[in-house]
Amino acid sequence: MPELRRDPIVGRWVIISTERSGRPQDLIVPCPPVASNALCPFCPGQERLTPREILAYRAFGSEANGPNWSVRVIPNKFPALQVEGEMGREGIGLYDRMNGIGAHEVIIETPSHTDGLGDLPPKRVEDVLWAYRDRILDLKKDLRFRYILIFKNHGAAAGATLEHSHSQLIALPIVPTSVTGEIEGCRAHYQQKERCIYCDVMRQDLADGGRVVAENPEFVCITPFAPRFPFEMWILPKRHAGYFEESQRGQFEFLAPILCESLKRMDKVLSKPAYNFMLHSSPLHERTGDFYHWHLEIIPKLTQVAGFEWGTGFYINPVSPEEAASALRDAEI
Amino acid sequence: MPELRRDPIVGRWVIISTERSGRPQDLIVPCPPVASNALCPFCPGQERLTPREILAYRAFGSEANGPNWSVRVIPNKFPALQVEGEMGREGIGLYDRMNGIGAHEVIIETPSHTDGLGDLPPKRVEDVLWAYRDRILDLKKDLRFRYILIFKNHGAAAGATLEHSHSQLIALPIVPTSVTGEIEGCRAHYQQKERCIYCDVMRQDLADGGRVVAENPEFVCITPFAPRFPFEMWILPKRHAGYFEESQRGQFEFLAPILCESLKRMDKVLSKPAYNFMLHSSPLHERTGDFYHWHLEIIPKLTQVAGFEWGTGFYINPVSPEEAASALRDAEI
Repeated sequence: MPELRRDPIVGRWVIISTERSGRPQDLIVPCPPVASNALCPFCPGQERLTPREILAYRAFGSEANGPNWSVRVIPNKFPALQVEGEMGREGIGLYDRMNGIGAHEVIIETPSHTDGLGDLPPKRVEDVLWAYRDRILDLKKDLRFRYILIFKNHGAAAGATLEHSHSQLIALPIVPTSVTGEIEGCRAHYQQKERCIYCDVMRQDLADGGRVVAENPEFVCITPFAPRFPFEMWILPKRHAGYFEESQRGQFEFLAPILCESLKRMDKVLSKPAYNFMLHSSPLHERTGDFYHWHLEIIPKLTQVAGFEWGTGFYINPVSPEEAASALRDAEI
Repeated sequence: MPELRRDPIVGRWVIISTERSGRPQDLIVPCPPVASNALCPFCPGQERLTPREILAYRAFGSEANGPNWSVRVIPNKFPALQVEGEMGREGIGLYDRMNGIGAHEVIIETPSHTDGLGDLPPKRVEDVLWAYRDRILDLKKDLRFRYILIFKNHGAAAGATLEHSHSQLIALPIVPTSVTGEIEGCRAHYQQKERCIYCDVMRQDLADGGRVVAENPEFVCITPFAPRFPFEMWILPKRHAGYFEESQRGQFEFLAPILCESLKRMDKVLSKPAYNFMLHSSPLHERTGDFYHWHLEIIPKLTQVAGFEWGTGFYINPVSPEEAASALRDAEI
């Protein structure tokens, strides 16, 4: 019998319909490589092919926009939004518009052209997390920006256009609707119970154990109770925290290894799928830290989103999160 | 300069960022054919390969589950939900679940294996619309169902698994969140102004003309002001109507030709792309008819939805709706 499940935070229902697929492994789709440039603009030595760097962690004494870096942040060469200009908010009859003011940056995660993020030593992944934090703290000073999203598209099927491992940052002058939806769900729970709903979710899931993928003293990786996608994973800090960018060294020392482990387990079970991850953190200038809990969402790209999903915002997931967590836990990595 | 636009109904912002692509035609992606079965279960003569029909419009005297039909409705052989059983609503700590009760049907739109919906004579498309209406009116009697979605996936990239032209119907025991979002937007507008917001949108767009794709005495096809996807189109009845299934013959005589024309224009401009359409109508047992306006949304599958969109519910659209409408209007069909 298929099952309907409701996400306790945003109220979205999903259909868990395991009878339509066979074993989880049947979902594996070949991950076609991203078109490979002869000259990769993200490789050391090709720095002249990118816009000038905003930030780089580099060897002592090495020159900006030259090689010898471990992480490098540059403006996106084809930005979806631009930093300079007026907001230009205006109404046109019923409609509202403004200029596309914002920032769009690329975080090159490693000098290696072939390593994925999960293949890096956790110490190198810590550097990537520091770069995220540094960029958010810097952009937060620009009061035009209301929200910053950090995300990663890996593999052509997940929207990546370059093979070399990288993530992206977009700073927006508005808070996006899906973030508002999460925050309103958290606020309603907090008003009723004076507790963070993500903390409650974690407490129940850690006690139950069936959806836990990995765990360490500071973080947990779970498959959510009502996932939109098969093998969707959430990584959450165990201690309540609303803002990713307020994380300290002690947290990143535990976040980097659990992120690597989760990606490795996913790669093992699903044969290195295309995937996206999105860092969900509090809006920049709102007091949501008491009831909103930052987290990282990882979604392997296995199923097609089609008319049903677009028409309803209602997802059909052919793998239960308990089955997914069990396969991920059992993977030998 | 990229532009941010807000949808007046659901409040979703999109980025219109035309500088990232060249001409609209550059978005054309080859539409790989759906894997073709030697024996198509939807072709006349193969009726034994499908579950027994629920409804068929067939030649006088022809037998059920035999050939000589023009439209045929069958249960989905791999249903996402099932009709029989108890609702089984229960709470598990924080979480809510229920059994996957619902209906999942397939509307085979034509006996021809190769014709697309837009290739059919409008009179045949009217039959498809009647089949939608008949099935909704029948399923509406089952008081467990709260919402019925009719949708179409055409082409492998849009989620179709069979080539023979068909649409699908899903009856749900809950109202999906994205429908609730639209309805709340309409309700808020109505409470403030005592007018339907879709009627206001149509009035402004017909006067402006720049986003109108096609028009006849009863219907209009527009590209919305803040579209999520390039070449997204909405077909709306000009006269306010909340429930698709209350349409009369006079409406379908005008809906069928504008639907065919819109699909033909899309096929011409985008070289027969994969696409989805979704019929948005009022929930079954709610009094939303005064302020909600049924409509059909058509979205060609041209761009990848990636981490940014999943992370924010915020879409980057490389083609402005004015540019899309102009190309669609100018297409010679």
